[in-house]
Amino acid sequence: MDRRDLFRRPLAAAAQLAAPVHAALQHEAPGTEPGHLPLRPGATPPRVTALAYSAHELTEHTVDDFETLRSMRGKWPVLWVNADGVTHAETVRRLGDVFGLHRLALEDVMQVPQRAKADAYDGYLFVVLRMARHTPALDLEQIGVFVGPDFVVTFQERPGDPLDPVRARIRAGHARIRASGPDYLAYAVIDAIVDHYFPVLEVYADALDALEDEIAERPNPSCMSRLHRIKRDLMALRRAIWPLREALSRLVREPVPPLRDETGVYLRDCEDHVFQILDLVETYREVASSLTDLYLSTVSTRTNDIMKVLTIFASIFIPLGFITGIYGMDVEHARGWWWSLPFVMAEMGIAALLLLAYFWRKGWIGQR
Amino acid sequence: MDRRDLFRRPLAAAAQLAAPVHAALQHEAPGTEPGHLPLRPGATPPRVTALAYSAHELTEHTVDDFETLRSMRGKWPVLWVNADGVTHAETVRRLGDVFGLHRLALEDVMQVPQRAKADAYDGYLFVVLRMARHTPALDLEQIGVFVGPDFVVTFQERPGDPLDPVRARIRAGHARIRASGPDYLAYAVIDAIVDHYFPVLEVYADALDALEDEIAERPNPSCMSRLHRIKRDLMALRRAIWPLREALSRLVREPVPPLRDETGVYLRDCEDHVFQILDLVETYREVASSLTDLYLSTVSTRTNDIMKVLTIFASIFIPLGFITGIYGMDVEHARGWWWSLPFVMAEMGIAALLLLAYFWRKGWIGQR
Amino acid sequence: MDRRDLFRRPLAAAAQLAAPVHAALQHEAPGTEPGHLPLRPGATPPRVTALAYSAHELTEHTVDDFETLRSMRGKWPVLWVNADGVTHAETVRRLGDVFGLHRLALEDVMQVPQRAKADAYDGYLFVVLRMARHTPALDLEQIGVFVGPDFVVTFQERPGDPLDPVRARIRAGHARIRASGPDYLAYAVIDAIVDHYFPVLEVYADALDALEDEIAERPNPSCMSRLHRIKRDLMALRRAIWPLREALSRLVREPVPPLRDETGVYLRDCEDHVFQILDLVETYREVASSLTDLYLSTVSTRTNDIMKVLTIFASIFIPLGFITGIYGMDVEHARGWWWSLPFVMAEMGIAALLLLAYFWRKGWIGQR
Amino acid sequence: MDRRDLFRRPLAAAAQLAAPVHAALQHEAPGTEPGHLPLRPGATPPRVTALAYSAHELTEHTVDDFETLRSMRGKWPVLWVNADGVTHAETVRRLGDVFGLHRLALEDVMQVPQRAKADAYDGYLFVVLRMARHTPALDLEQIGVFVGPDFVVTFQERPGDPLDPVRARIRAGHARIRASGPDYLAYAVIDAIVDHYFPVLEVYADALDALEDEIAERPNPSCMSRLHRIKRDLMALRRAIWPLREALSRLVREPVPPLRDETGVYLRDCEDHVFQILDLVETYREVASSLTDLYLSTVSTRTNDIMKVLTIFASIFIPLGFITGIYGMDVEHARGWWWSLPFVMAEMGIAALLLLAYFWRKGWIGQR
Amino acid sequence: MDRRDLFRRPLAAAAQLAAPVHAALQHEAPGTEPGHLPLRPGATPPRVTALAYSAHELTEHTVDDFETLRSMRGKWPVLWVNADGVTHAETVRRLGDVFGLHRLALEDVMQVPQRAKADAYDGYLFVVLRMARHTPALDLEQIGVFVGPDFVVTFQERPGDPLDPVRARIRAGHARIRASGPDYLAYAVIDAIVDHYFPVLEVYADALDALEDEIAERPNPSCMSRLHRIKRDLMALRRAIWPLREALSRLVREPVPPLRDETGVYLRDCEDHVFQILDLVETYREVASSLTDLYLSTVSTRTNDIMKVLTIFASIFIPLGFITGIYGMDVEHARGWWWSLPFVMAEMGIAALLLLAYFWRKGWIGQR
Repeated sequence: MDRRDLFRRPLAAAAQLAAPVHAALQHEAPGTEPGHLPLRPGATPPRVTALAYSAHELTEHTVDDFETLRSMRGKWPVLWVNADGVTHAETVRRLGDVFGLHRLALEDVMQVPQRAKADAYDGYLFVVLRMARHTPALDLEQIGVFVGPDFVVTFQERPGDPLDPVRARIRAGHARIRASGPDYLAYAVIDAIVDHYFPVLEVYADALDALEDEIAERPNPSCMSRLHRIKRDLMALRRAIWPLREALSRLVREPVPPLRDETGVYLRDCEDHVFQILDLVETYREVASSLTDLYLSTVSTRTNDIMKVLTIFASIFIPLGFITGIYGMDVEHARGWWWSLPFVMAEMGIAALLLLAYFWRKGWIGQR
Repeated sequence: MDRRDLFRRPLAAAAQLAAPVHAALQHEAPGTEPGHLPLRPGATPPRVTALAYSAHELTEHTVDDFETLRSMRGKWPVLWVNADGVTHAETVRRLGDVFGLHRLALEDVMQVPQRAKADAYDGYLFVVLRMARHTPALDLEQIGVFVGPDFVVTFQERPGDPLDPVRARIRAGHARIRASGPDYLAYAVIDAIVDHYFPVLEVYADALDALEDEIAERPNPSCMSRLHRIKRDLMALRRAIWPLREALSRLVREPVPPLRDETGVYLRDCEDHVFQILDLVETYREVASSLTDLYLSTVSTRTNDIMKVLTIFASIFIPLGFITGIYGMDVEHARGWWWSLPFVMAEMGIAALLLLAYFWRKGWIGQR
Repeated sequence: MDRRDLFRRPLAAAAQLAAPVHAALQHEAPGTEPGHLPLRPGATPPRVTALAYSAHELTEHTVDDFETLRSMRGKWPVLWVNADGVTHAETVRRLGDVFGLHRLALEDVMQVPQRAKADAYDGYLFVVLRMARHTPALDLEQIGVFVGPDFVVTFQERPGDPLDPVRARIRAGHARIRASGPDYLAYAVIDAIVDHYFPVLEVYADALDALEDEIAERPNPSCMSRLHRIKRDLMALRRAIWPLREALSRLVREPVPPLRDETGVYLRDCEDHVFQILDLVETYREVASSLTDLYLSTVSTRTNDIMKVLTIFASIFIPLGFITGIYGMDVEHARGWWWSLPFVMAEMGIAALLLLAYFWRKGWIGQR
Repeated sequence: MDRRDLFRRPLAAAAQLAAPVHAALQHEAPGTEPGHLPLRPGATPPRVTALAYSAHELTEHTVDDFETLRSMRGKWPVLWVNADGVTHAETVRRLGDVFGLHRLALEDVMQVPQRAKADAYDGYLFVVLRMARHTPALDLEQIGVFVGPDFVVTFQERPGDPLDPVRARIRAGHARIRASGPDYLAYAVIDAIVDHYFPVLEVYADALDALEDEIAERPNPSCMSRLHRIKRDLMALRRAIWPLREALSRLVREPVPPLRDETGVYLRDCEDHVFQILDLVETYREVASSLTDLYLSTVSTRTNDIMKVLTIFASIFIPLGFITGIYGMDVEHARGWWWSLPFVMAEMGIAALLLLAYFWRKGWIGQR
Repeated sequence: MDRRDLFRRPLAAAAQLAAPVHAALQHEAPGTEPGHLPLRPGATPPRVTALAYSAHELTEHTVDDFETLRSMRGKWPVLWVNADGVTHAETVRRLGDVFGLHRLALEDVMQVPQRAKADAYDGYLFVVLRMARHTPALDLEQIGVFVGPDFVVTFQERPGDPLDPVRARIRAGHARIRASGPDYLAYAVIDAIVDHYFPVLEVYADALDALEDEIAERPNPSCMSRLHRIKRDLMALRRAIWPLREALSRLVREPVPPLRDETGVYLRDCEDHVFQILDLVETYREVASSLTDLYLSTVSTRTNDIMKVLTIFASIFIPLGFITGIYGMDVEHARGWWWSLPFVMAEMGIAALLLLAYFWRKGWIGQR
């Protein structure tokens, strides 16, 4: 299916795209204890995988027993644990215990969505950010990343493979990632997430290009509905990426403990990408707003053209009809004069010519 | 009753929602003494309750005698006094005396509404903020919070139970709140108030979603009235929450005496929520503004469609009517020729076909 | 007279309200000497009053002789001199001499209007700000305030009593104002001026509320004229109050010599009011802008409704008229057939029904 | 001629006002050597005048020989040289040699227009700014000012007398300017230039006031053309003055060598004026934007009114015409019944009354 | 061909101008290794030229062998290597090896487009910026510039001669460029690139001027399409130049190692140009937005005029036609009265006069 078609079917797409307006509202009842990990009825434990590596060795397995995980700490330079779900409070709590993570940060992991941020805790850093996909509606998944001196813990909101390319690089033994510490791994994860925004933005660029042609050629009400939905998605994207910019800028300017200075230059590269995404989102929003003007003016001009045709027809034929009406009257004098037909024809011809000349002088006909 | 319906009944809702535009205007006559506590005729004393607790003990009662209250100071780690009304100057003054609160702060408590702020006084902190509810119109209630070394004094604008969940947590003996000082309690109060914004925002998200469908399917003037009211409410929400952001940011960056550093991480969490609320309010405002464009363009397009139908009908039948007029004239030559009916019918058929072809080429018919 | 009516009578009000656009333009010829006090032909000396007080004594008189005034300096803790006009260069110059005020500041007093500001000079502070009244058009009067170690000099642009409540408080012997120095008096004056904005804003809140009802119920061109005038007044208010915010913020953060630290907490209160006024002005501007959208959409919708009626009538009756035209033609075959009337009636009935069905399916009739 | 008329004659004025859009584009070919003084073919040497003064003496002459000028340096406290043209590279270069000015600054003098700025060089300050006049179109002339320890060199873009009032004050022996150094003279020059903006802004205030009346009373297409031109001019003014604000603010905060601290208070006054000009420009831009809304809504309302009249006439008379058509049919039954005329008249009267009642209930007639 | 014509041919131009929306999206798959130089299938090696010079000597040749290049390092004060293509990974990598450039910077060179920036690496500076041309659509080419202690390496995205004027200046032996180090050369390159924006902006100024005339005289739908495309191009230009402003400002305020302080004053000049370009882009965007208003209002006014004509014709002739209809009825009383013709004529004359008077009083006819 052509990607652009997504924005062509208003109602179905509307249902899918309703998400952004609502998305940020799944909150606990006001007054709930902070750091409380909510019990979600029916939540099943997520799949937790562990990947530990040094420059020369690598081990990988699914975690069933958190004690084994605890025993692995300190034995490998980098231990990467990934959970592909955040609804199961018990799993989140036990992972938090193993790595000594703060309750508030764990609550943020479970309470989706959070504002993107990078919070420094004692000895580790907690980064929350959102990954964008378009499948086939805009889908913003929250990823929580904890970076410690010898571990990285990532929480995905849903199962899926956004981080597989990073895993593949580790498995393939790429020198830099294998030789670097957990901060480089965290950077690689964040970079992979940020880079997912580019193909998503491409979908919107295509949709805007398609809309531009359609509006110029055959404006129809569905254009504006699609434009509205694109605007709404762009707002959601902006809301997702904007706070990340601040968080990354702060980390680049003053890296906190688990990050080493060497990683700074990589984070700066990542910050550049975030800036580029924001530039593009802003540009697309302005293009969308300019297309709104284009639509409104195109419709106005078409209404104007239609009115011109109506006015010309009506203003010419209604007076002519009136003349025929006069001669159609059943009155005494109107009958039986031989010259009446040529006379009335001449009358009507002159009236029509005068009116045509008037409209021509007004520029409504013949000059386009 | 369905929440969305609130925005469906224009006039009744308008009366209720008139509040935001007016709300900030109940001020004393210019030139009045600062720190003057205004005597409001007919004001009755509010209900004042005291709740004192340590990690292991708890006492709770309604305050009738302010001397008893004074004698409780210093005997409990945390003494929380709550008044559920701010119009009775005498009560406010006497509570101020017991805890040594500044006249200007007490005046701010009585003069509703204040801009949200956090002012540091000698030895205590004064925070004013506004709580949002939607019952069934937007209702912004001012809450004043004084935090001292061993007390928290809260003033609600109206009776009600917004702080009950906090009280329940204290009574239930939750370890953290019972073991912490008044600054943690103050944080818990502020957090509860801030979290009340989320369900309110949900109402607006629902209303905007409903409007989006309605505008796309059957735009009608009440859409725009409701949209206008939503915009106005969002402005009121923004005005209520925006200054709180500044106040909290300052407290997080440089906590003043009654706040301990440990509370900082909690306030940062609260600040995150405020940021999220502001993000949402801004997004909803932009969605509302995009819906305005959608409405205007939908109406323009519909007018355009209507004009097209009118123009096609009029431009076809007025000329045809003119032809019948010609043959209806009572003139000499028009009579008695056998072939006149077939001839005139052919004439009219050709005229109609030419006109239809013209409109088809203009794209007004048959191509949609 | 009802306040809201002010915005109902376009032309008279327009004359009065023309002020804001022009107001800032009474300037000297370019290249004039700075600090030059312009001679205004026909200017008469303003009324100058002096009010000197200590905690226990008070003297008050009209100043005729500036030498007496000079001799009073240093004898009272606070000497307040007020001039109720700024056009008479001689009076301004002589008052400046008595208190040692800088020529540039005196020029600013006479050159109305100035941007609100607080300029520190050697040993004294010069504050310029504008007071708002609505009598019955928006009226922004400039007030210049000089605060020295033992004096306050105020210049009103026009005679009037805006500062009378402050005088009344001094005369009534209110402890705080009588016991405090000139900086507290200056604060009291500035506070009284700032508080004058609130009743003025209330007028605009009322006018916007009234407009909202009127636009929703019976939009008419005068709505937009009034809305435009309200916007213009709000811009003028914003321009008047915005720079005051900066000036006060600077004074609160770093109080300059004549201001003591104790006055800081009061200025902070005053700054809060200025912030609140700005919040309200911004909100009203956005409400006004939303009302513009409401007006345009209401008119569009009404045009749309009108067009619908026209199109339905014309599209039904013009074809029917055409049918009657056919049967009205004076042609051979059309005569004398007994069934022609029932036949033509059926024809017309079917045509009308088909057209009604078409409009009903388009949703133009019967479904609202 | 009335100033407001300028904005009345669209085409002639458009030609004159085309300047702002183009104005900033007279640049050298990309890649040209920086500091290159371009040879303009046909450029004639400008008139260069020298004015040297101390508190008690003054000499003034036209400069023909730059060696004489060089010999005057150091002999007078202040030597002011003014050139009234910037196209003659040789003159600019030789003046630069006499006073030791940097090539890049001289290039900026010749390359019109520059962004207003104040650049500190070794031992002297270079200020570029633009002077506004309205003669009769907006005319922004660049003035370059060099301020050294004992000289001021000014370059006007075109001959003219904007600085004559300053010269007059020097000749008249005004104490302050004669007793002060070149920095005060530079301030006086800048102040004179800045003050030229006020009468120009007055022209736009008048034009906006006139437009407001015209739009409310008889909107016509030329209103919008004039409004567009006013907006464009205001943008040009804003672009000319905005960077000056930054440059002056920097000088006021941290005066560079040739400026003494005493001059700071004067520059602050000048900065105030620049702020005021910017405030006014912004206000006028917002007024212009509000007038756009007013125009669009007025035209919409008028179209609405016109449609109402058309619809009422057409919807009443087309059905009535149809009724007459029925009775005009040449069919068998329609003839010869005595009561047919009264009957048809009654029919038509009832139809007309029903339609009138319908339009009255819709509020289109009789209620206004 | 006239430059303005570019914006006249909507469809062809649209194809060419589609670039800006898409341009920033050629990114690697998410998760790719940072610093990875992508292998582009079919990429051919670019032309690499070396130009080495001291104040008195100069050598220039095409580079085939990178070892020769390496051997030249350190033998000349300035060695300038230019590659006119960035798709061939091998060339980029080998050039990076010769000069010791960081992988991330080389990746940025190959991944077009980057956000303009100036990144400091150990011992060298990496500047990326974009050059604008209009040939005949907007064309933004990325240029990467590395500045080291004794070298400048430039990467052009495409073959072409934008830097030829700089080469010509070097060959011509211009004292300043030959006597200065690589930082001055880098400045000269950046300045040449920045100056390319001015002729491009001129194209848009011309196009906006042409549109202004066209909209005022004969608004047509292509106006808005062209305006939309101009807006889109201006957004692309703004996105290209805005980040350069930040990068240059930082370099001017705190020059990093390879830049000497003397070069600061030149960079400041370059920064001025960037500011001027941004000012112009913003102004043109506002002019474009004002033209949108002008277009919409012109079309509205024209529709209004057309409606007026239609309404006048229809409202006069439809009632008159009705009168003729009455007298055309085949009813008993309507026949054979001698005075009926004069009578009906008088009736119709009076009706027409009344209607004309009504329209004249409404101001629709005769007053313009």
